[in-house]
Amino acid sequence: MHIALLGASGYIGTEFTRQIDKLGHKLTAIGRSNCDVYSVSSLLSVLEDASPDVLINCAGYTGKPNVDACELDKANCIAGNAVLPGVINEACETLGIPWGHVSSGCIFTGRRSDGGGFTEEDDPNFSFRNNNCSWYSGTKALGEEVLADASNCYIWRLRIPFSNIDSPRNYLSKVQRYENLLEAENSLSNLPEYVAACLDCFDKNVAVGIYNLTNPGSVTTSEVVEMIKEAGVCDKEFRFFASEGEFMAKAAKTPRSNCVMDCSKALNAGLKLSPIHACIRQALANWRPENREVRIEQQDLSRSSAGH
Amino acid sequence: MHIALLGASGYIGTEFTRQIDKLGHKLTAIGRSNCDVYSVSSLLSVLEDASPDVLINCAGYTGKPNVDACELDKANCIAGNAVLPGVINEACETLGIPWGHVSSGCIFTGRRSDGGGFTEEDDPNFSFRNNNCSWYSGTKALGEEVLADASNCYIWRLRIPFSNIDSPRNYLSKVQRYENLLEAENSLSNLPEYVAACLDCFDKNVAVGIYNLTNPGSVTTSEVVEMIKEAGVCDKEFRFFASEGEFMAKAAKTPRSNCVMDCSKALNAGLKLSPIHACIRQALANWRPENREVRIEQQDLSRSSAGH
Repeated sequence: MHIALLGASGYIGTEFTRQIDKLGHKLTAIGRSNCDVYSVSSLLSVLEDASPDVLINCAGYTGKPNVDACELDKANCIAGNAVLPGVINEACETLGIPWGHVSSGCIFTGRRSDGGGFTEEDDPNFSFRNNNCSWYSGTKALGEEVLADASNCYIWRLRIPFSNIDSPRNYLSKVQRYENLLEAENSLSNLPEYVAACLDCFDKNVAVGIYNLTNPGSVTTSEVVEMIKEAGVCDKEFRFFASEGEFMAKAAKTPRSNCVMDCSKALNAGLKLSPIHACIRQALANWRPENREVRIEQQDLSRSSAGH
Repeated sequence: MHIALLGASGYIGTEFTRQIDKLGHKLTAIGRSNCDVYSVSSLLSVLEDASPDVLINCAGYTGKPNVDACELDKANCIAGNAVLPGVINEACETLGIPWGHVSSGCIFTGRRSDGGGFTEEDDPNFSFRNNNCSWYSGTKALGEEVLADASNCYIWRLRIPFSNIDSPRNYLSKVQRYENLLEAENSLSNLPEYVAACLDCFDKNVAVGIYNLTNPGSVTTSEVVEMIKEAGVCDKEFRFFASEGEFMAKAAKTPRSNCVMDCSKALNAGLKLSPIHACIRQALANWRPENREVRIEQQDLSRSSAGH
C-alpha cells in the first residue's frame, strides 16, 4: 500500500511513519517543504505526482506546550484544525483517494447523561456550539463538521495519547512531570494501538466514518499515579490540585476536556484496542525513560562541531 | 493617504475603490494575483514593498447567490472569514499599520431583551456559540473573536447593504427580484454612507474597536415594499411567505439573521449615518436601474468579436 502522510514529523506522525515502515508500505510525506497544504490545487498536484492509494492527515494545530497556546494564535489554530481537513477532503474526493483524519475526543466533556461513554452518534458537547470549550476543542469540532458530508473519509478520534516511551507528549510522562495534577476521569488512547487501528481500517476495509479509537474503559488521574508507583517508574511524591477551580486559577487559561468515550463501534469493526488499565500497566512495565544525558551530550557535540 | 485594499473587486470593495479614488487617496489593491493572502510572510512582503499608511479588508466569503452556498463550502468560508482576519492582523501588527475589517451585523438575531438594538458591548447571539446560526454567521463571529485582542484594528459591522444603484447585491434590488419575500425587521447599511464612515475613521482619528455602521433605526420588509411602490421604482405585485417556517421550507437551507442594531457609538464618534427611512427613500428617488439591454448588447459584441 502506498500511503501519503501529512504531519509526518509530529508525535502522532512519527508513530505512523514507524508502523508504515515496519509493515513495508510505501510512504510519501507531504508537508510545507513540498506543498502548500492549504491550497487544493497544490495538494492535487502533489497527489497526482505521487499517486498514493490512501492519505492520512496527522497535521493539526495542538498548541505548545499545551492547548493554552491556541488561545494566543487563534487564526493558525482554526486553519490547521478546521480549514485543512476541508482542503484535504476536496483534493481526495477529486482524485477518489480514501483518507483518514486524526481527530480528537477532546470535543466531549464528562459522560453521557445515561452514565455511558460518548459514542459516535453523540454530538460533541465541548465545542463552540456548547460555548464551554477551549479554542482548540472548538476548532477540532468544527473540523469534524467540515467533514460531515465527506464520502470516503475516516475520522479517527484520539484521546490523550500514551505509550511506553518517555516523551513530553506522552500522558504517562506528563503525569510524572507536572508539578501538580488534576484529578479527573478520562478515556485514553495507547498510541501504538491507535495507529495500528487506523492502518487496519484500510487493510480490513472497515466502513468509512467516525471512530472513537480509545482503549476500552476509563481511568482516573490517581489510578494512573498508583500504577506508576506500583511499576516503580517514578517514586516522587505526587501532588494534586485541591479542585478544578484551583487548577484553572493557577495552571490553566482555558478549560480542559475530561471525558469518557465508548469505543464499541471500533471493537465491533474488528479493530484492536486493549482494556485501558492493562494497557497502561504494560506500557509502564516496558517503560523506556528518555535518555536525557545522551541528548545533552549530543547537543554539546553538535555545538562544538558548529563552532569549528 | 495611501490605502492597501483587500477584496477590491467585490461589491463592497468596488465602492471603497470609487470613494478612495474620488478623495484622491492612493490605492494599492492586494489580492490573489499579487499575494498569497493566507500567508503572513507573503502579506508582509507585499506590504513592505507598498508601504501603505492603512489597510482595509473587504475580502471575505459570503456565498453565491446567498449564504446557503456557505453550507456547501465550509472550509473556504471559515478560511475567508475567520482565518484571513487573523493573518492580516498579524501582518499589520508586525508593521504597525492601522487597519479596518469589514465585519457583519449578521452575528445577531432579533433585538436585545430590553427592546433596544444590539450595541458593540453585546455578545453575538447568532453564532456557533449560540448554536442557532448559519455557517456564514458562525464564521463571521469567529472572525471577530480572532480579532478580539487586536491593538490597532477597526471592526466595521455592515448589515444588508443597499444603495441607489440596481445590483444583484443591493437589498433594494433583491426585494424587487425575489419571487417571495420574508417579513422581518432589520437595520440596514447604506453602502456609500458605510464606506464613507469607514474612511472617516482614519481621517477623524476615531478610536479603534468595533462599530455598528448601520443607518439609525430599523425597517420591515413590507415598509421597504411600500417605499419601492411609492417611489414608482417597481409596480409588480409583491408576494410574501406566510411564515418563516414556509420560507425555511421552500427557499432557504440555513437560518437567516434578522436583527436591529444600535449605531449610537458610531454617531457619537462623529460618523455620518442618516436615518434609515429617509435614506431608503433617497436611494429610491435616485434609483438607477441596471441597464440590462446595454449589458446584453455588450455581451453580444464581445462574443462576436471573440468569434473573429
